[in-house]
Amino acid sequence: MLRTNTCGELRIEDVNKNVTLCGWVQKTRKLGGATFIDLRDRYGITQLIFSDDDQAGAKFGEEGFSREMVLKVTGTVIERLSKNKNLPTGDIEIKLQHVEILNRSLTPPFTIEDETDGGDELRMKYRYLDLRRTVVRKNLELRHRMAIETRNYLDKLDFLEVETPVLIKSTPEGARDFVVPSRMNQNQFYALPQSPQTFKQLLMVSGFDRYYQIVKCFRDEDLRADRQPEFTQIDCEMSFVEQEDILQTFEGLTRHLFKKVKGIDIPTIPRLSYADAMKYYGNDKPDTRFDMKLVDFKALVSGKSFKVFEDAETVLAISASGASEYTRKQLDELTEWVKRPQLAATGLVYARYTADGTLKSSVDKFYNQEELKKWAQACDAKPGDLILILAGGENKTRKAMSELRLEMGNRLGLRDKNKFSCLWVVDFPLLEWNEGDPNLLASLAGRWHAKHHPFTSPKPEDINLLNTDPGGVRANAYDIVINGVEVGGGSIRIHNRDLQAKLFEVLGFSKEEAQKQFGFLMNAFEYGAPPHGGIAFGFDRLCSLFGGAESIRDFIAFPKNNSGRDVMIDAPSEISEEQLKELGIHLSTEKS
Amino acid sequence: MLRTNTCGELRIEDVNKNVTLCGWVQKTRKLGGATFIDLRDRYGITQLIFSDDDQAGAKFGEEGFSREMVLKVTGTVIERLSKNKNLPTGDIEIKLQHVEILNRSLTPPFTIEDETDGGDELRMKYRYLDLRRTVVRKNLELRHRMAIETRNYLDKLDFLEVETPVLIKSTPEGARDFVVPSRMNQNQFYALPQSPQTFKQLLMVSGFDRYYQIVKCFRDEDLRADRQPEFTQIDCEMSFVEQEDILQTFEGLTRHLFKKVKGIDIPTIPRLSYADAMKYYGNDKPDTRFDMKLVDFKALVSGKSFKVFEDAETVLAISASGASEYTRKQLDELTEWVKRPQLAATGLVYARYTADGTLKSSVDKFYNQEELKKWAQACDAKPGDLILILAGGENKTRKAMSELRLEMGNRLGLRDKNKFSCLWVVDFPLLEWNEGDPNLLASLAGRWHAKHHPFTSPKPEDINLLNTDPGGVRANAYDIVINGVEVGGGSIRIHNRDLQAKLFEVLGFSKEEAQKQFGFLMNAFEYGAPPHGGIAFGFDRLCSLFGGAESIRDFIAFPKNNSGRDVMIDAPSEISEEQLKELGIHLSTEKS
Repeated sequence: MLRTNTCGELRIEDVNKNVTLCGWVQKTRKLGGATFIDLRDRYGITQLIFSDDDQAGAKFGEEGFSREMVLKVTGTVIERLSKNKNLPTGDIEIKLQHVEILNRSLTPPFTIEDETDGGDELRMKYRYLDLRRTVVRKNLELRHRMAIETRNYLDKLDFLEVETPVLIKSTPEGARDFVVPSRMNQNQFYALPQSPQTFKQLLMVSGFDRYYQIVKCFRDEDLRADRQPEFTQIDCEMSFVEQEDILQTFEGLTRHLFKKVKGIDIPTIPRLSYADAMKYYGNDKPDTRFDMKLVDFKALVSGKSFKVFEDAETVLAISASGASEYTRKQLDELTEWVKRPQLAATGLVYARYTADGTLKSSVDKFYNQEELKKWAQACDAKPGDLILILAGGENKTRKAMSELRLEMGNRLGLRDKNKFSCLWVVDFPLLEWNEGDPNLLASLAGRWHAKHHPFTSPKPEDINLLNTDPGGVRANAYDIVINGVEVGGGSIRIHNRDLQAKLFEVLGFSKEEAQKQFGFLMNAFEYGAPPHGGIAFGFDRLCSLFGGAESIRDFIAFPKNNSGRDVMIDAPSEISEEQLKELGIHLSTEKS
Repeated sequence: MLRTNTCGELRIEDVNKNVTLCGWVQKTRKLGGATFIDLRDRYGITQLIFSDDDQAGAKFGEEGFSREMVLKVTGTVIERLSKNKNLPTGDIEIKLQHVEILNRSLTPPFTIEDETDGGDELRMKYRYLDLRRTVVRKNLELRHRMAIETRNYLDKLDFLEVETPVLIKSTPEGARDFVVPSRMNQNQFYALPQSPQTFKQLLMVSGFDRYYQIVKCFRDEDLRADRQPEFTQIDCEMSFVEQEDILQTFEGLTRHLFKKVKGIDIPTIPRLSYADAMKYYGNDKPDTRFDMKLVDFKALVSGKSFKVFEDAETVLAISASGASEYTRKQLDELTEWVKRPQLAATGLVYARYTADGTLKSSVDKFYNQEELKKWAQACDAKPGDLILILAGGENKTRKAMSELRLEMGNRLGLRDKNKFSCLWVVDFPLLEWNEGDPNLLASLAGRWHAKHHPFTSPKPEDINLLNTDPGGVRANAYDIVINGVEVGGGSIRIHNRDLQAKLFEVLGFSKEEAQKQFGFLMNAFEYGAPPHGGIAFGFDRLCSLFGGAESIRDFIAFPKNNSGRDVMIDAPSEISEEQLKELGIHLSTEKS
């Protein structure tokens, strides 16, 4: 090694040792005839010192050490006169005897500090410099630790890590596939996996019993703010299990990660049915760090000639704790907020439960004090709280109220990123109607679509509904939600060929299509497939949540931007005519 | 769980316990009024028993349990009358009380036994059944263990596992890239990485100091017998190191894996220069499980009017220990073997060193006993040995002799797959001349080509040869070879922009090409790149070597065949017109 120690390692006990360190110049400053350099590496910062008086120092002084220069320095560990208690190495410094400049640096386009002056785009273009910032590096260290602890936990439970292939077959169910033209098999394409779903099921058919993999998956989606075309899953599958076994096993993983990585003991994870999640939160991934449940006011408010409520399919209320003092201006602003096109509510009704115990609403004309008291009772409001009410069509109103609830949670400081609330959502519907999702091929619109995926098992008691009421069939499917973020989901799978064929039929596959795309799996079910089920965690998302961040990007070493581009390496990019020719493909624009 | 125990778990101490097991019917047999079933899962085999006499048994008997049926059985653990010492569960059996058939099975197309009757193609098509065979599953369990131990070792040394992107930029240096058309960026393509080389170097520029990843890589090659289009590397990089640090660190990893996975203590790994490897073995990845070095006989045999030797550029000999009794027939056959088109030797000269101490050669006309004694001395032959000599052009002869050496090693049983011999080969040449490699684009022929890759650092003392004698420049590059298989390789990298630009120039890149393809890396070198180096191990190969197998395929869960096809899922395959249209590409055949 070019060094004897790292920049994070030396302590008061090391005084008088002769050491060699390597690292980057964080900053330099002159003070009373001496020069101080902060030398930085992954492990920390160590202060170097040389005096202008001595011969070596005079020579070093001439060099002009600039930011981000790479140095190899040799010197003696000495005790600092003014110690820095904020730095693990703050008791010592290195009196320099020798300096070698290993590499020079241009002035970085932004400052290498936790709070940088670089904008998003600049930081992405120079990602290798952005990664030098301690905050960003810490995120990736957290990710490393999460991966190690995940593997340790699953390895102890006899899960085998098995790598499944990346070059597979296109099955444009779910989102769009990325495809890879084959040179050796002209006119044919591989696809990149959206998940290793079918392979992990085949591993269960193979008797592997317990499988996991931390694995890259790919989805050619129109990217939203916080999606990436390539993302990482903790992918797991178990045989001879029922839903309860999966929930227990992966509640255990969640608990293990919180304990080992964050030092937090989380309580038993509560469970909520999909139906109740929609009822109480308007949302299948509720943020349960705070209560503020949705309450159905329709019956309560009907028959009082208030046209808005009379005409509405649904009337929903929440009680925002301690918000009764909201000013008129704040309430007007909140009304504008719910009227935005994203929510498109027609208005917001409120009732203040004042500290003196009376209620003042925006609809006092229609509802008297006694009736308002019943409102308060219904949504468990107390003096000091603010009741907020939205009315309109069921789906739209429930969605808008869910958003308003989260917004009020934000405004009232109830969504602390250092507080964690986990939840299982269970009993999902098996199917949903696809009106035409821009992330699916147009040819899949106007069909039933699998809510989780086409391999999810319906609840046995609901199988008879497949023919009569597909939308009413519940699945043995579950999501794990932390702080309102769906971090994982899975299901008990179908392991019976006939039932799987039936599902493909309901999903609008012809027998031929089903056989062509998934024949290998249905054939496998003929040879003794065990009951099995599994789960996959969104690893990027889980890491960002543990890191207390909103975005997954800073937990990915080299992320892509919202256009799916890596602006650092400039990908995707054009390829040569020679490559295209060998692959036997033409670009459409070439035709004209 | 549907079971209380696995099929590998119960012992004599468990007698009288009531248990539930799940698994596959391995076989059934009737004996003396009782029926025995071997129930198999990943963990082992447990014998089940029921008697035709009792009521339950009679009912079970009617079921006709067939091979690979999936059962859930409940019963009592009893001591076996005739114990099976070869089975960990061989002291007990389960007296059945209840049987549930979880799934039925068609008769598998081949037997699920260690020695199966299924051919390669059939086993690949039904890979999910092939994976049920214990021998195949053990290979993948070994792979899991290797991965875990690799991570444990590197984690302890402060290496951070960082995931690098899979959708990157095409740089058709090295082998051909697989490419991925971008829908969002029409006419542009991502490429799949042949290795994370540039990203790991950027991580070093970022100060990550120690990086590793067990990562899928991709190469669009015309597949040879034992190559896969997607393969896995243990990919590592370190900063502030010299070659010696890398060798020590990864010799440590190799030792750790042998110890933890195989229980073998391996001695210090010897080092051999590339030049000496070629001189003594004719090969840069010599199998050092046996000696039998190549000896240059040219000077020794010259001047004796034997035209074959006189005309030859090179005369090489080996001494095959204990082979002096080879019959004329065996020697004729060996002569035919070296004359095959692959080796194309013109003939084989031999000299038997008989037990009585005399030498008998096929060229006795030209060389007397005294001269033959000198031959024996030169190649360290002893009575009982057989000296084999090839002559001809230098490159061809050295290659042929290397092959003959390995063949004799095979024939003499010197290549025991349970014996392991590790070797570092160092001081590789930096460049080699590319005459036109079918795995490279045609446009790259007739150029210098990087022997490792274009980021490898030349030895400082050889840099001045870059202009005058590029082929003579040695690199700070090294390979680790086990039993004649190159399992890993790496180098100290260039960390200086000007030297990197010079290398691209020597490799025939124009300044514009270099900037377009690798500008991001050269720019990164402007901002304080540390000295760094690394290594990558071929993980599939390493696993197969530890497993004592020739082929990597059985250490990959779902491998592709020699045409790059997955015959189980039938990939690659055609994609829909709709997909092609969205991607903006046409197939060449559509034109006509």
